[in-house]
Amino acid sequence: MTQGAPDAAFPDGFGLHRGNIGIKDDTDDVMILSAGEGATAAGVFTKSRFAGPSVTLSREHLADGRARAVVVVSKNSNVATGARGAANAAELARLTGRAAGCRAEEVIVASTGVIGVQYPMDRIRRYMEKLAAAPSFDRPGSAWDAARAMMTTDTHPKVASASAGPARVVGIAKGVGMIEPDMATMLAVMTTDAEVEPSALDAALRRVTARTFNALSVDTDTSTSDMAVVLASGRAGPVDGAALEEALHEVCLDLTRQLAADGEGAETLITATVDQARDEDQAKRTAKSIVNSPLVKTAVHGRDPNWGRVAMAVGKIYDDDIDPDRVVIRFGDTEVYPNPVTPELLESLEQYLASPEVLIHVSLGVPGGGPGGLAEGSFTAYGCDLTDGYIRINADYTT
Amino acid sequence: MTQGAPDAAFPDGFGLHRGNIGIKDDTDDVMILSAGEGATAAGVFTKSRFAGPSVTLSREHLADGRARAVVVVSKNSNVATGARGAANAAELARLTGRAAGCRAEEVIVASTGVIGVQYPMDRIRRYMEKLAAAPSFDRPGSAWDAARAMMTTDTHPKVASASAGPARVVGIAKGVGMIEPDMATMLAVMTTDAEVEPSALDAALRRVTARTFNALSVDTDTSTSDMAVVLASGRAGPVDGAALEEALHEVCLDLTRQLAADGEGAETLITATVDQARDEDQAKRTAKSIVNSPLVKTAVHGRDPNWGRVAMAVGKIYDDDIDPDRVVIRFGDTEVYPNPVTPELLESLEQYLASPEVLIHVSLGVPGGGPGGLAEGSFTAYGCDLTDGYIRINADYTT
Repeated sequence: MTQGAPDAAFPDGFGLHRGNIGIKDDTDDVMILSAGEGATAAGVFTKSRFAGPSVTLSREHLADGRARAVVVVSKNSNVATGARGAANAAELARLTGRAAGCRAEEVIVASTGVIGVQYPMDRIRRYMEKLAAAPSFDRPGSAWDAARAMMTTDTHPKVASASAGPARVVGIAKGVGMIEPDMATMLAVMTTDAEVEPSALDAALRRVTARTFNALSVDTDTSTSDMAVVLASGRAGPVDGAALEEALHEVCLDLTRQLAADGEGAETLITATVDQARDEDQAKRTAKSIVNSPLVKTAVHGRDPNWGRVAMAVGKIYDDDIDPDRVVIRFGDTEVYPNPVTPELLESLEQYLASPEVLIHVSLGVPGGGPGGLAEGSFTAYGCDLTDGYIRINADYTT
Repeated sequence: MTQGAPDAAFPDGFGLHRGNIGIKDDTDDVMILSAGEGATAAGVFTKSRFAGPSVTLSREHLADGRARAVVVVSKNSNVATGARGAANAAELARLTGRAAGCRAEEVIVASTGVIGVQYPMDRIRRYMEKLAAAPSFDRPGSAWDAARAMMTTDTHPKVASASAGPARVVGIAKGVGMIEPDMATMLAVMTTDAEVEPSALDAALRRVTARTFNALSVDTDTSTSDMAVVLASGRAGPVDGAALEEALHEVCLDLTRQLAADGEGAETLITATVDQARDEDQAKRTAKSIVNSPLVKTAVHGRDPNWGRVAMAVGKIYDDDIDPDRVVIRFGDTEVYPNPVTPELLESLEQYLASPEVLIHVSLGVPGGGPGGLAEGSFTAYGCDLTDGYIRINADYTT
């Protein structure tokens, strides 16, 4: 289900608190999801060397495959804040644990916003102590409310859901810029009431992330705060592993597409599918090269079927087995190379490029063991066009 | 010498022809540099898998370290044009050889402009046959005229010169977008009247390119037509090899800086110097990550001393020996991390970011065998800010 999905409550076994600490303004800037005893969890995190203490702490707290709460603070990433920042992240976990009724080690901390600024700890302490004295959690909580509380410059909240037998998977995400996740993503929190072992949950999340969040790029910049976590309350009992992974995939892919479409300044979702590649890695590098090319992104923005720029983006994958004479380039279903574009085709392509989603489909024609003697590696990457909106947002964003 | 250098004639031993074939409009679109018997030459070329026949042909023709003419056609790159395009490039070499009085195998062909469109061969033939019947070459030719004849969307011609003893080095270049040269660059032609062996010239060009053209990125997109060549007429006799390489370096670096400053839509030249790195490769990857980050580029454009984005760009170099606690980030001479920026400093930084050239200086602090127990790898990369001008130029450029 995509945005506007009516079924936007978290699954059974989760409570939601959200509110305003006053980190930057008076919109919601804190969101706490709590789960009962026995919840299992898994997470993937940014590989950034400048990763914040939220990432370090949460990775530690997830090592045993269990978590009872996720706290997300928005408008401040608590990154590049030194030893004081690390102590503040640890204190936030303790304070959240007290409010959510669990130990600090069972809390996942996520944070997003400006880099290099300390948390306003006095306000955070005051807020969390009040919450601990009078806990207020919605059951079931609204995923829309939770997603909204995580937003920074997102233009709308991102929610997706799917079913796996009797269990449900509900996910929320935020992020519009500094997005080329690598092993992780911007903030994404998935929940399910399925009962699932930590190791199985972790393996499923990693496989799903590889083809969803890690296939996403808005601007080639990898955030210091990327994190995708999943919590399972177990309330719906055990479900088929494949069905659960399929539902998790559906939710993560839906969120990935929503994130790409809401990229900073974006007007068009660009999907690049590459097939007939030597392997998945070659297909992924090529697909990423296409969605990351500023010249492809601006051509789509200008509704210019300039396939030469797609050829250029394929050309900078310096693999000997990519032969330009075997490559086929299509916009949607329309071949543009090697078959030359006729004037009539050009007009319909300009119309196609004006649609909200544009598919660029490149078949590399690498020889291999598949049908027709071709290789079978394939990958789909998700990105967006590059507009003056991106420049405006990022040249004006103040430190 | 930089732009506006009075001494802009090619060195002794070179003749220049330029004119309008009518490839696209009525500005100069062809430039031929001819050299006498015995001229030596070297070149570096794009690694693009979609490299055009000009690149393939010129690489072959340079294999023996000798060349007598360079022909540059602008407004059409002759890329992704199949067997017909390859035949046209070969014919262009033959026609040029006839006009310049040398064999086709002694001609270097370069081409820049739109991808995927065939040359107007009838016009090219008519033009070149007329030139062969009545050769018209200026001796010495004006490097400004030659650079102007190569321009596509460049806002001004790029010329640089230097001396090596009795010899001179004069270079010209073009290119504003699709610029992240890899083993080569956009079109650059260097000339000298020094007498130098092909192997020495080739080695010098490769060393110089690594620290000049290959340190340049406007938009991370690698062109299908990149080429940097140097021709030596020998008229000034042998010169000291180190002095010649130094002069070649001076010219190529000057052209590199001119190319970066004239990047599409650019208002600011961004220089990223990284030192205290494990080795040159680590320093180069980090410096490129900084000049290529859309978020750093837009921050500079917005005159926003948002050093957190520089930290982010360093963070996505996933090397274990990069420790955020040892990294120092400076804008110009001003440290911004880890020492916090004071409000007074902030104001002077905003002024600094308004200058035509901005230096971002990052010391990685990697332990090593240099002074203070630090590693000594360093590299400087050249780029430019990202502006709405880039979007306008590239969303509106028609196929």
